[in-house]
Amino acid sequence: MQKKTLPLIIICVIFLGLFLNAQQNDNKILKHVEPPFWWVGMKNTQLQLLVHGDKISDYKIEISYPGVEVISTNKAENPNYIFLNLKISENTKPGMFRVSFIKGSKKMEYQYSLKPRVKRENQGQGVDGSDVIYLITPDRFANGDTSNDSTDDTIEKVDRKNHDGRHGGDIKGILDHFDYIKEYGVTTLWLNPFQENDQPAYSYHGYGISDFYKTDSRFGTNEDFKTLVDKSHQNGMKVIMDQVFNHCGAGHWWMNDLPSKDWLNQWESYTSTNFATIIASDPYASRSDYDLLTKGWFDKNLPDLNLENKYMETYMIQNSIWWVEYAGLDGIRMDTYPYPDQNAMSNWMQALTNEYPGFYMVAETWASRTSYLSYWNNENTNRNGYTSYVNSVSDYPLYFAILESFGKEGDIYKLYETLAEDFVYGNAYNNKVFNGNHDQGRIFGILGENVEKLKLSMVFTLTTRGIPQLYYGDEILMKKDKPDGQLREDFPGGWEGDTRNAFTASGRTDKENEVFNYVKTILNWRKNAKSIHQGKLTHYKPDHNVYVYFRHTDNENTMVIINNSDKNIQTFDLTRYYESFKGYSKGIDIITGNNYETLDTIAIGKNTALILDLKK
Amino acid sequence: MQKKTLPLIIICVIFLGLFLNAQQNDNKILKHVEPPFWWVGMKNTQLQLLVHGDKISDYKIEISYPGVEVISTNKAENPNYIFLNLKISENTKPGMFRVSFIKGSKKMEYQYSLKPRVKRENQGQGVDGSDVIYLITPDRFANGDTSNDSTDDTIEKVDRKNHDGRHGGDIKGILDHFDYIKEYGVTTLWLNPFQENDQPAYSYHGYGISDFYKTDSRFGTNEDFKTLVDKSHQNGMKVIMDQVFNHCGAGHWWMNDLPSKDWLNQWESYTSTNFATIIASDPYASRSDYDLLTKGWFDKNLPDLNLENKYMETYMIQNSIWWVEYAGLDGIRMDTYPYPDQNAMSNWMQALTNEYPGFYMVAETWASRTSYLSYWNNENTNRNGYTSYVNSVSDYPLYFAILESFGKEGDIYKLYETLAEDFVYGNAYNNKVFNGNHDQGRIFGILGENVEKLKLSMVFTLTTRGIPQLYYGDEILMKKDKPDGQLREDFPGGWEGDTRNAFTASGRTDKENEVFNYVKTILNWRKNAKSIHQGKLTHYKPDHNVYVYFRHTDNENTMVIINNSDKNIQTFDLTRYYESFKGYSKGIDIITGNNYETLDTIAIGKNTALILDLKK
Repeated sequence: MQKKTLPLIIICVIFLGLFLNAQQNDNKILKHVEPPFWWVGMKNTQLQLLVHGDKISDYKIEISYPGVEVISTNKAENPNYIFLNLKISENTKPGMFRVSFIKGSKKMEYQYSLKPRVKRENQGQGVDGSDVIYLITPDRFANGDTSNDSTDDTIEKVDRKNHDGRHGGDIKGILDHFDYIKEYGVTTLWLNPFQENDQPAYSYHGYGISDFYKTDSRFGTNEDFKTLVDKSHQNGMKVIMDQVFNHCGAGHWWMNDLPSKDWLNQWESYTSTNFATIIASDPYASRSDYDLLTKGWFDKNLPDLNLENKYMETYMIQNSIWWVEYAGLDGIRMDTYPYPDQNAMSNWMQALTNEYPGFYMVAETWASRTSYLSYWNNENTNRNGYTSYVNSVSDYPLYFAILESFGKEGDIYKLYETLAEDFVYGNAYNNKVFNGNHDQGRIFGILGENVEKLKLSMVFTLTTRGIPQLYYGDEILMKKDKPDGQLREDFPGGWEGDTRNAFTASGRTDKENEVFNYVKTILNWRKNAKSIHQGKLTHYKPDHNVYVYFRHTDNENTMVIINNSDKNIQTFDLTRYYESFKGYSKGIDIITGNNYETLDTIAIGKNTALILDLKK
Repeated sequence: MQKKTLPLIIICVIFLGLFLNAQQNDNKILKHVEPPFWWVGMKNTQLQLLVHGDKISDYKIEISYPGVEVISTNKAENPNYIFLNLKISENTKPGMFRVSFIKGSKKMEYQYSLKPRVKRENQGQGVDGSDVIYLITPDRFANGDTSNDSTDDTIEKVDRKNHDGRHGGDIKGILDHFDYIKEYGVTTLWLNPFQENDQPAYSYHGYGISDFYKTDSRFGTNEDFKTLVDKSHQNGMKVIMDQVFNHCGAGHWWMNDLPSKDWLNQWESYTSTNFATIIASDPYASRSDYDLLTKGWFDKNLPDLNLENKYMETYMIQNSIWWVEYAGLDGIRMDTYPYPDQNAMSNWMQALTNEYPGFYMVAETWASRTSYLSYWNNENTNRNGYTSYVNSVSDYPLYFAILESFGKEGDIYKLYETLAEDFVYGNAYNNKVFNGNHDQGRIFGILGENVEKLKLSMVFTLTTRGIPQLYYGDEILMKKDKPDGQLREDFPGGWEGDTRNAFTASGRTDKENEVFNYVKTILNWRKNAKSIHQGKLTHYKPDHNVYVYFRHTDNENTMVIINNSDKNIQTFDLTRYYESFKGYSKGIDIITGNNYETLDTIAIGKNTALILDLKK
């Protein structure tokens, strides 16, 4: 090729690009193509494109691109939809391929992008016992960009005076306070859903998604979210995305033009779910009760997605994979997990694990009893033949035991007893352990604003078996109860003009600093505590409201003593626990740094915990 | 053979018999040989004889009998014991064989009887959902034979004024009132242990056994017990025997001369069990806590048997089989089931099932939570590799749910929720369901002496899944709480001179008759209610404290509606339950006999249950 021809070619290519682009923009008929793009080299070589456009089913579809094959073109009940089933062969090259829509002499074209997969160093590292998850409600943490507090493409405008309204928190706010999070010592971020929630009111919480492929413009862009993930990875941290399969928001674009009646679970008149998730595993449940659980609506504004519809199932599974691949996620937290069709949920988990072996998936499983929580956790097959394949469940029975144990006149036996039930789980060490989240009253408030009890609950959460999760603001003594909008309070200092900045020590009260520093110390010690990351749990039946347990590997051993009683103990006798510290003779209190040169008796104050790293 | 020789032979045989007998009685050295006799034709051809006698281990042992072989003669730590391990070959003939004990020129002989097995028509029928078990505390039901109220071979004498004392009830008393039991309509008797409890005080309850092979003389003889079983069988009823493997009584004969130190679980000073049965399945339990559970003593007067000692294990398993074979038992209730070594208990169950396939074994499993109860019920292997092989557990979680549901301001949701957990069990339809027993306060008292609530608890117990068990006297409104001796009250009319005879309608108050007749009606209907015997359970999430469920086979269908609320319902809408009574158009109220010609709406009073047999 002569040098002179090059500029010409470049010009031609630019022209062609402009032409194609123009043609694509001209396709006013085409309204949605989802997923918006995909990747080559995925393990699952099939791809379903949802194509939405006026009478689109009248068109014949042609694709000509090496390695891309149309397996089937499936019409929906609604002529405005086509589900295009493609095969992207293994060695297909990245690039744009042209989808031609042909009706008689009329022809439209659409450019679809197949991207190369980004090889990520940490991909598939999962989230495990070495991590501590920090849950942030994005609207309520910090307002980094006031220019997006209200946006043109969304209805609800900012109103910080309304506790159920939008307050302006955003991804930039989290990025701006990344150092605070890092200093605190958590390792993993979990954000309540950041996808678009476009509805007139009460849209800040994120669970009424109106576009599954788009970050809510009041939080930022998809790119902004990706930046947050990248920054987390650069700092050795991980990110869990909150996803919702059970329902969409009433403001979802497809609500005006559903692909089919059975795209949603529809009822003659509004029908609420019975909220009894116990029905999902109840061997005696009537079909109608089961249908009510899985097909009844969670709320009038949350249309119930019908995952028994195979196109819908595939749509959601692909959406999930799309975000993992796009943003390089480390995990997914699945909302309202027991509510959708359980076979679809099992298929989803299998698809995800097929694509990303060892991927971390934590299910929201609001179960009051260990027995029925085990239905979801079980890596083995349940007696009815069902396997969820879920690798982590939200340990609500243990959460309720935390409240009972550390609450007024609480007995720590409840914690012990609940853990003793763990034999029913496939893998209890993967259970997510928490002392608060966006759905419960603030732990500090629940525990009667008792700082000592709050600390005990933190010690337990961070040292027992499982993957701990904390809720933003609990470290600075947020204490409000429901309604939701109130307990998901703004973090002080996250907004310009806030009277104080609790992100800094000087902006916190003494009590807040006491708790912040206490938890911070544990969190930062925990980062390197292999006994906690990988160690087995051995515990002892509590005596007089004192609970003793050990986390131990072959070479590490941590002893935790929680005195949950109102009595100081001058000489707590360790003889009973000898079998668990045989071979170890000394201990270091990881909070105070104090050394214990012998392990015979120990003094421990009322409502105090000791975390002792044992030494030989 | 000439006729004349016959008398001579008879005389010779008699003489020989007297001689042998005399010789056996002469063996003052021999104190105990257990089991006292055995059978030919058992599936397990091995038999361990515990031989107890002064320096018995100095003797050599010889047996000469076709089909009987000495496999080994095992000395114990204590020279006064030998464990003789025999093989009784398949085709061995019944008869007496001579055991020769030889020391130098000294020779003793002992005649051991091998009996033919009695072929019983009902053997191995088991106990199942078609049955209702009636628990009787033998000392407290009826005194049929005043001559054995105090006996020469037992220490504690009758004292009816002492509620912890012996009151004189006996097997004859039960036989004398067999018609009452039959009229009531239960199908199966379970007696608290009737084996000898020879101790100075508090011996009536039966759980401190001093001779595992002997009926307490104050209750009668082994033959008397066998008569009770035979009479039960003749009347189409079954009998469950209460057995105890965890401990013996302090008055047991071997306590003065133990075979070995490890015949019992011994401690330096008295050490109580921790009573925390949850430890048995706790994956995190320390070894010391587990040892305390299994090796700590239940009470100072109840020495803890060490079932890890293989001779002891075999001793107890053989004792269990001995009673089944001797008396023709239909089932065993095992006391304090989670307390002994769990492997020994599993071996016992397997030995029993090997000998009597389908044999009914119900374990006393005092568990507050379904999850850890499932550890024992599970016919499958638990994750730690343990299988109990137990086919029925005492459903304590459901019992506690009964108390909560029908107690003051109780919500029947508790029952529903507890049943919904059943998926964790191997076979919940075999669970023993009860609303009272000898360890709990009387149900009528617990339910605030509310007759309506008592009736509801009876309806539930008798119609839900499982094998129901009632406690004697609950039908006549016994109401006392603990202490034990008080709640296990004498049945009025069981003693001569009682001021009234509640075994007859005229001796009961109106309220007592109301409850007796109510339960009697259900029990007698239940005898032929295949829907209850074999039917599956389908239930509906309770609404406003009304719980609806169905028991159904392909051809039978029973609908139960329990209105546990304080509101009369004029028109209870049945539409919601249509899926469960499709094909059925009518119903008969099995209590009143009232016909319901349509199944659309139904009137149901407050705190009332309806049991409707559905008709096509």
